Amino acid sequence: MIIYKTKGWLDAIWHFHTGSSAVSLLKRLSVVTIYVTVVTVIELRYLDLRLTDTPSQYVQALGILLSLLLLFRTNTAYDRFYEGRSTWGALVNTMRNLSVMFNTMLPQEVRADRLFLTKTISNFAVALKNHLREIPQLAELELVEDWQQKEFESVDNWPNEVVNQLRGRVEQLYANRILTDAQLINLNDQINRLLDVSGICERIKSTPIPFSYSLFIKLFTVFYLGILPFTVIEWFGYMTIPIMLVTSYFLIGLEMIGVEIEEPFGTDRNDLPLSQLAHRIRVDAHEIMRLPVAKEDKMAAKPDFMIVN
Amino acid sequence: MIIYKTKGWLDAIWHFHTGSSAVSLLKRLSVVTIYVTVVTVIELRYLDLRLTDTPSQYVQALGILLSLLLLFRTNTAYDRFYEGRSTWGALVNTMRNLSVMFNTMLPQEVRADRLFLTKTISNFAVALKNHLREIPQLAELELVEDWQQKEFESVDNWPNEVVNQLRGRVEQLYANRILTDAQLINLNDQINRLLDVSGICERIKSTPIPFSYSLFIKLFTVFYLGILPFTVIEWFGYMTIPIMLVTSYFLIGLEMIGVEIEEPFGTDRNDLPLSQLAHRIRVDAHEIMRLPVAKEDKMAAKPDFMIVN
Amino acid sequence: MIIYKTKGWLDAIWHFHTGSSAVSLLKRLSVVTIYVTVVTVIELRYLDLRLTDTPSQYVQALGILLSLLLLFRTNTAYDRFYEGRSTWGALVNTMRNLSVMFNTMLPQEVRADRLFLTKTISNFAVALKNHLREIPQLAELELVEDWQQKEFESVDNWPNEVVNQLRGRVEQLYANRILTDAQLINLNDQINRLLDVSGICERIKSTPIPFSYSLFIKLFTVFYLGILPFTVIEWFGYMTIPIMLVTSYFLIGLEMIGVEIEEPFGTDRNDLPLSQLAHRIRVDAHEIMRLPVAKEDKMAAKPDFMIVN
Amino acid sequence: MIIYKTKGWLDAIWHFHTGSSAVSLLKRLSVVTIYVTVVTVIELRYLDLRLTDTPSQYVQALGILLSLLLLFRTNTAYDRFYEGRSTWGALVNTMRNLSVMFNTMLPQEVRADRLFLTKTISNFAVALKNHLREIPQLAELELVEDWQQKEFESVDNWPNEVVNQLRGRVEQLYANRILTDAQLINLNDQINRLLDVSGICERIKSTPIPFSYSLFIKLFTVFYLGILPFTVIEWFGYMTIPIMLVTSYFLIGLEMIGVEIEEPFGTDRNDLPLSQLAHRIRVDAHEIMRLPVAKEDKMAAKPDFMIVN
Amino acid sequence: MIIYKTKGWLDAIWHFHTGSSAVSLLKRLSVVTIYVTVVTVIELRYLDLRLTDTPSQYVQALGILLSLLLLFRTNTAYDRFYEGRSTWGALVNTMRNLSVMFNTMLPQEVRADRLFLTKTISNFAVALKNHLREIPQLAELELVEDWQQKEFESVDNWPNEVVNQLRGRVEQLYANRILTDAQLINLNDQINRLLDVSGICERIKSTPIPFSYSLFIKLFTVFYLGILPFTVIEWFGYMTIPIMLVTSYFLIGLEMIGVEIEEPFGTDRNDLPLSQLAHRIRVDAHEIMRLPVAKEDKMAAKPDFMIVN
Repeated sequence: MIIYKTKGWLDAIWHFHTGSSAVSLLKRLSVVTIYVTVVTVIELRYLDLRLTDTPSQYVQALGILLSLLLLFRTNTAYDRFYEGRSTWGALVNTMRNLSVMFNTMLPQEVRADRLFLTKTISNFAVALKNHLREIPQLAELELVEDWQQKEFESVDNWPNEVVNQLRGRVEQLYANRILTDAQLINLNDQINRLLDVSGICERIKSTPIPFSYSLFIKLFTVFYLGILPFTVIEWFGYMTIPIMLVTSYFLIGLEMIGVEIEEPFGTDRNDLPLSQLAHRIRVDAHEIMRLPVAKEDKMAAKPDFMIVN
Repeated sequence: MIIYKTKGWLDAIWHFHTGSSAVSLLKRLSVVTIYVTVVTVIELRYLDLRLTDTPSQYVQALGILLSLLLLFRTNTAYDRFYEGRSTWGALVNTMRNLSVMFNTMLPQEVRADRLFLTKTISNFAVALKNHLREIPQLAELELVEDWQQKEFESVDNWPNEVVNQLRGRVEQLYANRILTDAQLINLNDQINRLLDVSGICERIKSTPIPFSYSLFIKLFTVFYLGILPFTVIEWFGYMTIPIMLVTSYFLIGLEMIGVEIEEPFGTDRNDLPLSQLAHRIRVDAHEIMRLPVAKEDKMAAKPDFMIVN
Repeated sequence: MIIYKTKGWLDAIWHFHTGSSAVSLLKRLSVVTIYVTVVTVIELRYLDLRLTDTPSQYVQALGILLSLLLLFRTNTAYDRFYEGRSTWGALVNTMRNLSVMFNTMLPQEVRADRLFLTKTISNFAVALKNHLREIPQLAELELVEDWQQKEFESVDNWPNEVVNQLRGRVEQLYANRILTDAQLINLNDQINRLLDVSGICERIKSTPIPFSYSLFIKLFTVFYLGILPFTVIEWFGYMTIPIMLVTSYFLIGLEMIGVEIEEPFGTDRNDLPLSQLAHRIRVDAHEIMRLPVAKEDKMAAKPDFMIVN
Repeated sequence: MIIYKTKGWLDAIWHFHTGSSAVSLLKRLSVVTIYVTVVTVIELRYLDLRLTDTPSQYVQALGILLSLLLLFRTNTAYDRFYEGRSTWGALVNTMRNLSVMFNTMLPQEVRADRLFLTKTISNFAVALKNHLREIPQLAELELVEDWQQKEFESVDNWPNEVVNQLRGRVEQLYANRILTDAQLINLNDQINRLLDVSGICERIKSTPIPFSYSLFIKLFTVFYLGILPFTVIEWFGYMTIPIMLVTSYFLIGLEMIGVEIEEPFGTDRNDLPLSQLAHRIRVDAHEIMRLPVAKEDKMAAKPDFMIVN
Repeated sequence: MIIYKTKGWLDAIWHFHTGSSAVSLLKRLSVVTIYVTVVTVIELRYLDLRLTDTPSQYVQALGILLSLLLLFRTNTAYDRFYEGRSTWGALVNTMRNLSVMFNTMLPQEVRADRLFLTKTISNFAVALKNHLREIPQLAELELVEDWQQKEFESVDNWPNEVVNQLRGRVEQLYANRILTDAQLINLNDQINRLLDVSGICERIKSTPIPFSYSLFIKLFTVFYLGILPFTVIEWFGYMTIPIMLVTSYFLIGLEMIGVEIEEPFGTDRNDLPLSQLAHRIRVDAHEIMRLPVAKEDKMAAKPDFMIVN
């Protein structure tokens, strides 16, 4: 995720045009340039296609429908981005609540359990981040008891497993009468929220905009850009080429931002700072439980960097 | 549901135009083609209807209202698609939570109950999928106790019956003091969510966009496409025919995607991968409860296929 | 509610134009026809009003604002329709959950209570339907104990009374120790949902779109239709009359669908199938509680009819 | 709130134009009339400003942006109106639920408590209505115990105080073992909803649309109306004056309805019928608790009046 | 936050144009003025660029897409503003509920605990306000027990710490049997809401609209404003300069209001009155708990000022 607070406009524009989608955008613009150049030269030098008479109201009607479809694309992509962000925000809130609850419910005597629960809270965010980015890294998890490693290795879905361990410990403390009925009931909703968060993220990741719409909008854009030069060539002459290039840049670019935004859990420049949020959760859990945390974690939890993954 | 990650554009376009709605789309486009050809030939060869003088602002005003109505259609259809997907996503989350709860609350001694509950969790998703697709298949359900078959055969609504069996077992464990008051309270919300999911899916399936709107938008599109050729014929001549064909393709196609998307529980190409999600639930429930699951189930739970039902 | 799955287009269009709003639509279109005819004849035969010079951009600007307002009307009307449908959907879910809960919590010995609760669940949907349609029919309710009739007759709001009876029985079973604390807590949310459903429906029914907006949109449509003929008369000549008629049909029709949809609890053709949903609840409650239900009820619960109230 | 079911159109239009915002609307329209008259006379009689050459696409672009902004204004105002109505609807539901709960949980022996709670339920809606309308009237509250008056007089926020009294009595009944743990838990959510309702209403009342947007839209409208006559004067001549007047009526009127709707708790013609809803709550609470209620209250709870405050 | 109820229009416009964003707006408008002047002079005096032939439909299509994007910007910014306001509104409601609960659950004997909880409720809103505005001020918090200061100084996130102290005291009262199981369960949801509020505010603050969209809309505006003068210069002549200035004012201004609104926790003129809301919470908590509060606090809780931070 890019957060520009201090840097200037030019840097921002530069950054924006060097990501991976920028490359893809350039490819498409090259195709447009070739097409427009060919069309312009043929029209102006050789033969006059009937298409230059395209009446304005027809092109405008197309333009309005295309604008509305692009806005629909933008709105749905943004909604997913925002839902992804809100969901991770809810995870931060839940983890803080669980930390406060464990801190105030569990006596200092059950030191091992307090440590285990704090580390498990930290682990969930890390496991979810890696699950969404499909990078299974056991090393990033903080295991405090011996049996944990074997359990993780025997299952596929690590966020599920972390919750299994968390609730397992809670039920055990309840069976041992360290937690009362009322406390178990109070903890329940917050623990259930964890797998809700994990499932919502999986859903956002696995369900893009229906393929029909995505393809349809692409085809429409191609048709519109294909017919547009004919309607302006008479007025612009050879200036049609740069004008068409800029127009294509805006139409294609808008569609591509949609594609990039709607799956916000990767490491693209517009994606969410999952790594920072996971560190935030780790730092807060430790601070609330009055346990020490490494200074690097504290640094990584701050949103001050230019580019944050 | 189609997920194109690896294949190219051309394959995608080909696929898109070979489904069942594609056939229906072609039929309608044929009608348009015949109409436009007749109109064009008559206008250019024989008589000049007054309609060619249709002023541009009139057609544009129609075009804007039609575009807004098509967007309304698209938005409502997409909302249903998304609500359907979110609801099945919520089912996955609930089932994982129930699995974790049963795993940590029930001691290993009640092995039969653990098995029964795991299988019942798996059965719900399968029963709901078949209920929505109206294919009653008892064979797909995993029955572990003898009385179950008779019960299923005596009722019509299988998702209701699965929940009846699930809650029946939970209340029995509570009566036998294996589950405490607090645990029964904690399980309650998650169990209630199951019939919420089932009812929401039934509602989406049985309530399309109000018929008046659906018909109204169709009539409006027909009128617009009927009057459009007259306004461009003067400029395009015989090119009116291909231009109108493409225009009709976009207007009619947009409406048809709406129809296809708004009921997302079938087996159309844009529909939701219910079968895969049901397998996902089965695999996760078994993994969390530490019960073995068939390898084919694990395969079927992965979203890697080109076309997933 | 009309559900066309099998019948053809022509039937659908015929049906659509024979309802009560169709009559009202025809009346308004007659007024438009008279006005346009008078204007056209005067303009073409006698005097040239200055209005025929109305510049296109002015009419277009009006057209865009009017289109956006009609879409606003359509969106808000549809939202109410959808909220009404979702609310009744939630009622179905709640009733199924309550049935499953009563079935699994109450032992077979309290047969009278099981019967009373099943019938009371069925009664709520019927009472709510009749309350919304303002047809107080005691005969449709299934009373199983003698005191019920007197109670119903002494109060005005029957849905409230049904819930009073339902919760009264639950609290009594709790006082008699047949329901435990945990079970009473679990039942609570579902019972509370009933009066939420009833209140939401009352609200949708009693609060249409603010009168100012409704009137404003009507006035705007009248003004637009009043000025439109002058801007096209020059081009269309006497064809202005049929063209204006079709245009009015779309603009007035769109507004009228909004009026019809936004109060979806009546028996108009677009209204919700409350009667069918109430039967659905009755059938499911009996099936879940393993009580017999009349075959006619089962038939009436199916959504297969052409027109369902 | 105006509800027109029986009266005709002309009455409705008359009513609409005699409220307090109508006066304000007339004032603004007078300013527009003067401006347009001056501009028209100067243009047509004396000098030709360059502005009459304003190209159509420029004015149209302005018109589209202005239309979208007015729609944004309309949508946000309507959302507040609807949120206000839904919130009061939720209050009705909550109060009915609380009445049913108190009726079925409390034995007939604690007659004084039953009376106190019924009256307190009625009081909350009245206190909230008066709090929102800033008319502190102790007389409208029904006090049944001596200490209440002194308490009300010692605090500023009466809705808070009513809830304080309500929960105070509930906790006292719990301390006296008349309410059990489970019953106290069940009552909790409904009681908490009361202050949620009160806070949401206060928020809607105190937070209009951000001032920047409100001012911005006003300035934009002024600029658009200031430039519009120049673009039509050539075509309309002296008819520019009435045409501009009607146009201003629609643009300014739309903005003013927004202002009126977005704070729906006053006594304007479009505002919510708070008084009727408060009576509705009083009547229902008494009916459910089987306590007598005055006939005037029953009358005032019905939505049948032409104009309901 | 600016609330204009009594002052006139001119004051409002003056105020609006003297904030910090106004300065920024002026800078941008100066750039536009220079550009337009240069273009106009060159075009009219020296050479005729081909661009003046830009066809109207092209510029209009751009204008429509830009209008829709600006509306998207406005909608998303407003949604954040509204979410921020609603969240603080929810905080007010929660705090009142907690105050009522503590007042009615805790006997007068535990005077020290009642005082501590009231002050802690007040502290949360203040700590959150300062946390969001990044001004750590211990002096504004009301500490009533000695150990508190040390705790605050040892942690970074003060809202977390306040909740830690609040729940710590509640769990202690529960361990001491002053609060029962049912009361602890009832308090739980309200306490959990506090960190939800705090997390939602942090999320709104740290996640602006995705950078791509923000930059894209800026670039599009620049391109549109760059090409617009050529299309009107022929008609307007030197009047192009003031006309362009006003147009730029509206386009750039709309985008800038979006930037200002979307992070509503600062002390800009459109920002939320956090300080007033925090005082509101303090005053209400004390009033409900029957504790005295300073008169200045009461004054600061009122929304009557012209400009409220």
